[in-house]
Amino acid sequence: MNYFSSDFKLGILGGGQLGKMMLYETRKYDIQTIVLDPSNEAPCKIACNEFFQGDLMDYDTVYEFGKKVDVLTFEIENVNVDALQQLEKEGITVYPSAKTLKTINNKATQKLFYIDHNIPTAEFTRFAYSDEMENAIKNESLSFPFVWKSARFGYDGQGVKVIRSFADIEGLPNGECIAEKMIPFKNELAVIVARDPHGNVKTYPVVEMEFHPEANQVEYVICPARIDKKVADKAQEIALKVSEAYEHVGLLAVEMFQTEDDKILVNEVAPRPHNSGHYSIEASYTNQFEQQIRAILGLPLGNTESKVAGIMVNLVGDENYTGAVVYKNIEKIMAMEGVTPHIYGKRETRPFRKMGHVTIVNEDVTKARVIAEEVKKSIKVISE
Amino acid sequence: MNYFSSDFKLGILGGGQLGKMMLYETRKYDIQTIVLDPSNEAPCKIACNEFFQGDLMDYDTVYEFGKKVDVLTFEIENVNVDALQQLEKEGITVYPSAKTLKTINNKATQKLFYIDHNIPTAEFTRFAYSDEMENAIKNESLSFPFVWKSARFGYDGQGVKVIRSFADIEGLPNGECIAEKMIPFKNELAVIVARDPHGNVKTYPVVEMEFHPEANQVEYVICPARIDKKVADKAQEIALKVSEAYEHVGLLAVEMFQTEDDKILVNEVAPRPHNSGHYSIEASYTNQFEQQIRAILGLPLGNTESKVAGIMVNLVGDENYTGAVVYKNIEKIMAMEGVTPHIYGKRETRPFRKMGHVTIVNEDVTKARVIAEEVKKSIKVISE
Repeated sequence: MNYFSSDFKLGILGGGQLGKMMLYETRKYDIQTIVLDPSNEAPCKIACNEFFQGDLMDYDTVYEFGKKVDVLTFEIENVNVDALQQLEKEGITVYPSAKTLKTINNKATQKLFYIDHNIPTAEFTRFAYSDEMENAIKNESLSFPFVWKSARFGYDGQGVKVIRSFADIEGLPNGECIAEKMIPFKNELAVIVARDPHGNVKTYPVVEMEFHPEANQVEYVICPARIDKKVADKAQEIALKVSEAYEHVGLLAVEMFQTEDDKILVNEVAPRPHNSGHYSIEASYTNQFEQQIRAILGLPLGNTESKVAGIMVNLVGDENYTGAVVYKNIEKIMAMEGVTPHIYGKRETRPFRKMGHVTIVNEDVTKARVIAEEVKKSIKVISE
Repeated sequence: MNYFSSDFKLGILGGGQLGKMMLYETRKYDIQTIVLDPSNEAPCKIACNEFFQGDLMDYDTVYEFGKKVDVLTFEIENVNVDALQQLEKEGITVYPSAKTLKTINNKATQKLFYIDHNIPTAEFTRFAYSDEMENAIKNESLSFPFVWKSARFGYDGQGVKVIRSFADIEGLPNGECIAEKMIPFKNELAVIVARDPHGNVKTYPVVEMEFHPEANQVEYVICPARIDKKVADKAQEIALKVSEAYEHVGLLAVEMFQTEDDKILVNEVAPRPHNSGHYSIEASYTNQFEQQIRAILGLPLGNTESKVAGIMVNLVGDENYTGAVVYKNIEKIMAMEGVTPHIYGKRETRPFRKMGHVTIVNEDVTKARVIAEEVKKSIKVISE
């Protein structure tokens, strides 16, 4: 297929920030793109050739949209998978495939998939309904504390909760879920694997999520991870095993725990460009968005190595402000060495709303970490 | 001024490929942009917030467009400078300024400017009309061979010609021009200088244009230039002197000759992102397009150093093909290490038409040069 011709069309389900960053890369190759998103103000509108407004969970909408394109992909998992399956049957190329997405979209199915494929993951029990957990505790087949995870997405960030008592179970949505053993871990790591339709794979370096010591929120995504080579090699190996099991096409971001005794456990995966790979725009030979385009179109995969070390800091709305956004001290951070802000263009800030990210690159990861801390201390996402 | 607010508008005159690459960078900061271009199919249409179709040389069109924006810039020099001057008078920020553009746009004025500012440049004589050159030769105040250059742009690539005989003078447009001494040079070099409204400057490394040994066309732009440090330092110094003389705001690409006895002579300048800086997208900490945005908005200038060596190869239409374009072997070059094609999206190829460029990056400039040659040998811009 001639991707570089005006006859070719790539369709993207979802018009958010990840899609937008993917679209920048399609411009480099002048690939024609169309986007479907429920919001008429989707960030992607400015970067695609054609935009359609519509519900991503609606079978007919997704099906009709898919019929217009040669290759269909998504930047968000909450899409109508049945429509994708039908489109595949009718000869539309859908990458990642409907099958991959179906397994991943249900956290219980995803966990069972790891068990079936002998991939290390934290112990868990699946429940058809959350209230069944109470009986399990009474029967002593489950014990406090554990992590409750909703099997389905769509609970608006409320899909995960640490459960320490019966009181914590109250108010949980009563749907399919898993109860996962709490894992005390040293590090949270991630590896992005790119895989093309022929099964060729390339892995990005292991990145490390550094948490705020008190707030228990990821503060920095650091590439390369500051861990032993042995542990990094093991993480890479397991990520490749996960990739092979899924036989996905495109990117697969594999999130993992490094336990206190240096075991690697797979936490979860995302079949798309991922927050843990944003550093790659500035640091890698081939950034994750370009790689996703290369992979799903069956173009040669690019070099996943880094030119320099990269650290990413998420820009979230300050908890005390709501309203028209102001990026306080943005000029101050732009004066720091190797610092690039990425502003997502949302007009209104809210407490903890994701408003952008900042990348810090440097030849030396230690120096980058020092600058990243200065960035974090300086910039504030507030309102007027 | 809050550039990151939806009230702010950056206007760009010209909607071509340089403008498009500049617009990608505005997306990073979510800066609102509007573009004016005569063609309704301008590349910028896909990347700006609002697009206007109109003649860039028409006073009223440029003036009316300029009144809509807070900061006005251009990606092409052929614009109505009188309108820019009027807009400046009325308080619109125009960067680079109308004055800078006016001096640069006339090659005779530009050369006289170098003389006035004691900047080394090849010897020349100015003529109000090309046919005056004949008398000058008869009077022996001018002798063959020399380089004729039209003072004004707009002769469609016919603005420069080597004159070896009276016959060569025939058919030249009879307008203002210069006759320049032919300089046998070792290397053609370029330095891009970024300057902000406060007079802060940063220079990019010296790049080298490597010519095809027979065709006398630039084949590779190489960063860093493979020249003595002494010569590179001198080139940087002279570029800074040129920048200081112009007091420009934004980028100034300074093209220079390294003569056979290692003198540096300024050839000409361009007050905008430049072909000689395209390598920076992949190789530099801050690419030239981002730097232009930073400079004209008075944001802190970014680091101009390179992460890795970079080489750029222009993609031009093969001389034997006209019609719907095909990029033969593009997948082959994408499989090479550190290779990124940039396809400009023109539907039709013509002999020597500029269709895109390819960047090759590598830690080692010698290795990059080897790969660049493979790229050059492999890819062909042909038609169906």
